Amino acid sequence: DQQDEDQATENTNTLPADSHTMKGGDGPLSYAKNSSFQRVVVDATKKMIDEVIVDKLDIEIIASSDVFRIADLGCSVGPNTFIAVQNIIESVANKLHNHRPRNSDAADHLVFQVYFNDYATNDFNLLFRSLPPSRRYFAAGVPGSFYGRLFPTKAIHFMHSSSCLNWLSRVPPEVGDRHSPAWNKGRIYCTGIKEEVTQAYAAQYKEDMKIFLDGRAKELVGGGLLVLSFGGVPDGVPLCQVPLGKFNTVLESSLLDMAKKGLVSEEIVDSFNLPLYYPSTKELEAMINENGHFIIEKLEAIVWPLAHIVQDLGKWASHTRAGFEALIKNHFGDEIVEEFFEYYTKKLAQTQPWFSQ
Amino acid sequence: DQQDEDQATENTNTLPADSHTMKGGDGPLSYAKNSSFQRVVVDATKKMIDEVIVDKLDIEIIASSDVFRIADLGCSVGPNTFIAVQNIIESVANKLHNHRPRNSDAADHLVFQVYFNDYATNDFNLLFRSLPPSRRYFAAGVPGSFYGRLFPTKAIHFMHSSSCLNWLSRVPPEVGDRHSPAWNKGRIYCTGIKEEVTQAYAAQYKEDMKIFLDGRAKELVGGGLLVLSFGGVPDGVPLCQVPLGKFNTVLESSLLDMAKKGLVSEEIVDSFNLPLYYPSTKELEAMINENGHFIIEKLEAIVWPLAHIVQDLGKWASHTRAGFEALIKNHFGDEIVEEFFEYYTKKLAQTQPWFSQ
Repeated sequence: DQQDEDQATENTNTLPADSHTMKGGDGPLSYAKNSSFQRVVVDATKKMIDEVIVDKLDIEIIASSDVFRIADLGCSVGPNTFIAVQNIIESVANKLHNHRPRNSDAADHLVFQVYFNDYATNDFNLLFRSLPPSRRYFAAGVPGSFYGRLFPTKAIHFMHSSSCLNWLSRVPPEVGDRHSPAWNKGRIYCTGIKEEVTQAYAAQYKEDMKIFLDGRAKELVGGGLLVLSFGGVPDGVPLCQVPLGKFNTVLESSLLDMAKKGLVSEEIVDSFNLPLYYPSTKELEAMINENGHFIIEKLEAIVWPLAHIVQDLGKWASHTRAGFEALIKNHFGDEIVEEFFEYYTKKLAQTQPWFSQ
Repeated sequence: DQQDEDQATENTNTLPADSHTMKGGDGPLSYAKNSSFQRVVVDATKKMIDEVIVDKLDIEIIASSDVFRIADLGCSVGPNTFIAVQNIIESVANKLHNHRPRNSDAADHLVFQVYFNDYATNDFNLLFRSLPPSRRYFAAGVPGSFYGRLFPTKAIHFMHSSSCLNWLSRVPPEVGDRHSPAWNKGRIYCTGIKEEVTQAYAAQYKEDMKIFLDGRAKELVGGGLLVLSFGGVPDGVPLCQVPLGKFNTVLESSLLDMAKKGLVSEEIVDSFNLPLYYPSTKELEAMINENGHFIIEKLEAIVWPLAHIVQDLGKWASHTRAGFEALIKNHFGDEIVEEFFEYYTKKLAQTQPWFSQ
């Protein structure tokens, strides 16, 4: 019964509640202060979003709406989400303006409502207090996992999500199970090498994406747009062979080093895995087509800002901490956090030549 | 131009941003733990809300809506807001259920969306983390002053606000101005005795309520309901002669005592006034009728829970602190807060017989 599904649902996540949440507040270690690489992605997609609004968004959807509703899924705390939303609003208003030259002030009167979504453990207090005072939209925050329903049916015209859809709803349980052929011993992420591990991660991703796409298909108005940017691998290349994977490997070996020194138990390292997956283009296309709710209007690769990152590895380390601190803390305990990220930062600096190869 | 007004607006409040905000967190001094008297109001209005939904809410508004949208204005952090919202949802669902006996499961499929509104300085993090897991509604938080626009036009079916509408958008400037005839020297609230002070407060209230009612009139769907509960005085009785005013007088004399002891300057006490006003029924009726956007379907007095309060004055003191701590801190400084509320609590206990008269 479709109507039965059109209710708010609680996410049944097996990770502690805040594991997926970027570090709150606006201190030096916060996500607010450590998300400039994600900003690069927002900037890189600005032109693409504008083009897709110009080319693919039905003008009637804009013109016939009293209110144009936008959702940013996995918004964290800003400033990136405010920039992304502003880009979308400007493109939509421009499109209406250009379409109605005789009545060009219609665009000035178009009303926008923006829903900022993230886990309930996100720092919404900071998000709300940082809202741009000059914004021309009604703002609302929506707490909850996007692997579940967030909005009523046909409530949103434009949905956006940037740098979030690599986060799985959970670590696939097999990879942490020493009795499973998919046990990811000595590894903390899906490197793309061991077949069973890759399959377990890919299956989890497929399951999560189905829930994501099914939910969004209901929540979007007909003809609405869903714009997603997230990390992926080239077809046939395992993650451990691309730069992001190499960074993960440094994180991994930092943990293994700490186990060797006896600072954490090897067993606890073996049971730790990142709830992240990076699909290939082929895999993604197959998944969206199989799901059937959406047509791919545009699929483009953005170049990963490796050059920027290598120039300032300390910044990358603090970005990594802003994203992973809660995960590390929940798995290994509070007391290791400081030492671990210090060690990782040093190790990353020493590994620098490796990235330049 | 009506359309021009249909935009998000920023509140231009002259008080520090968090002055109107109840104390966040869930510690022993928090509003979450010190709002049981406000709960009494929520419980007392439950039956009234149910009756007004049964008698006055057009069944077609419910039956024709895909989504029934509710807003709680000045929600703070719960649990009161969750209880109020649940009461409203049950009444609306029951009404639909009773109206459609042959198709009685329609009520089970009615979709609700609830907007929780408060100042951006409210503890939305706690609110979102405390949302009832078994709720049957889509939840959203809306940051901003209700003395301004919060929602697009015709967005909400049912608006509710409990124990909030005594808070003015600001202290009327005259009452803190030693050169004004409305200077409220030696007083910290609108006692209802000095004519010029009362006029300044009443004018501010009228101005604020006009903005409030104008905004809500736009945001509500035609035939929607606005249910407000807040404090007032009997016609012709000054606030200082009713129990709430007497409590304010204890707060006032506690500050004056501290000035006498030299702990704060008399000047700073003289410039302090509570941004609160308590209208009479007559005044309220005149204001709503003059505004013209709403018809009063029901206006009832609820008995103030004085007996409960007098039984536990310590509780009243901590309730007062949860509501006023930010005000006191912003005006007098951090360092006085602890001592002041300790002194007030003691003074309140000593004054007990006075309340029993």
